[in-house]
Amino acid sequence: MNEIILKEKFKKIDDYWDPKIVGEVNDMYVKIAKIKGEFEFHTHPKYDELFYVVKGEITMHYPERQSKLKEGEMVIVPHGVEHRPTAKKEAHIMMFESKETLNTGDQENKHTRKKLDWI
Amino acid sequence: MNEIILKEKFKKIDDYWDPKIVGEVNDMYVKIAKIKGEFEFHTHPKYDELFYVVKGEITMHYPERQSKLKEGEMVIVPHGVEHRPTAKKEAHIMMFESKETLNTGDQENKHTRKKLDWI
Repeated sequence: MNEIILKEKFKKIDDYWDPKIVGEVNDMYVKIAKIKGEFEFHTHPKYDELFYVVKGEITMHYPERQSKLKEGEMVIVPHGVEHRPTAKKEAHIMMFESKETLNTGDQENKHTRKKLDWI
Repeated sequence: MNEIILKEKFKKIDDYWDPKIVGEVNDMYVKIAKIKGEFEFHTHPKYDELFYVVKGEITMHYPERQSKLKEGEMVIVPHGVEHRPTAKKEAHIMMFESKETLNTGDQENKHTRKKLDWI
C-alpha cells in the first residue's frame, strides 16, 4: 500500500521551489515542496490547485489581495485565477494538482520544473 | 478565494463517520470526518482514495495486513483494494476522493452517507 510519511519525505528535499511527487490519486498528483522567498504570478488556465501548509506559514498573493495560511490551513486556487505563493521563512507545503499542471502555469521562468521526480 | 481552516471546520462536526465536504479541486472533493471505533470493509471499484490524518491516530485494515497512521501521515488506497479504517480514540481525517465516491464503496450499511453536506 502507499503509506506516505510526510516528515520523512521532506527530509529528502534540499532545494526551495523544487516540487516532488509523493503520490497519485486518480488523475491527480500529490506533491510536496519546501518554499522560501518569492515566486512569480501565474495562472493555471484549466485546473484548480490546492495548497496545504504542513509546516510554517505562507502568503498567497492575488492581484487584488493576499492571505496568510498557517499549519493545517489550505487554499484552493480555482483555475484561471492569477496567484503567487511566498514565504518569509522556510515553509513546507503539500499540493493536489492535475497530473498536467505545470508549477509556473502559463509562465516560464527560473522556477519552472517540467519534469518532477518521485520521492 | 477558498481558504479552508481545518480546525474551524472540525468544530462544525458532531458525529463520527459523518463526512462533510470542505472543498473541490477539479473533479475531486476534499472531505473531512471525525472517526472513532469500527468501520466496515469495502472497496471503491473505480477510484483511488486518499486518507490524511489531521489529528490522532487511525489504523487502515486490509485483508492481509493493517497499518497505523499518525498525524501528518497518509495512505492512498488504490481503486479495487478492500479496506476499512478504524480508530481506538477520536481521530480527525481529511480525504481526497472522486466526486462520485461513496463512503462505503460497494457496500451499503449503517455508515452509508449518500448525500454529503458542505461545511
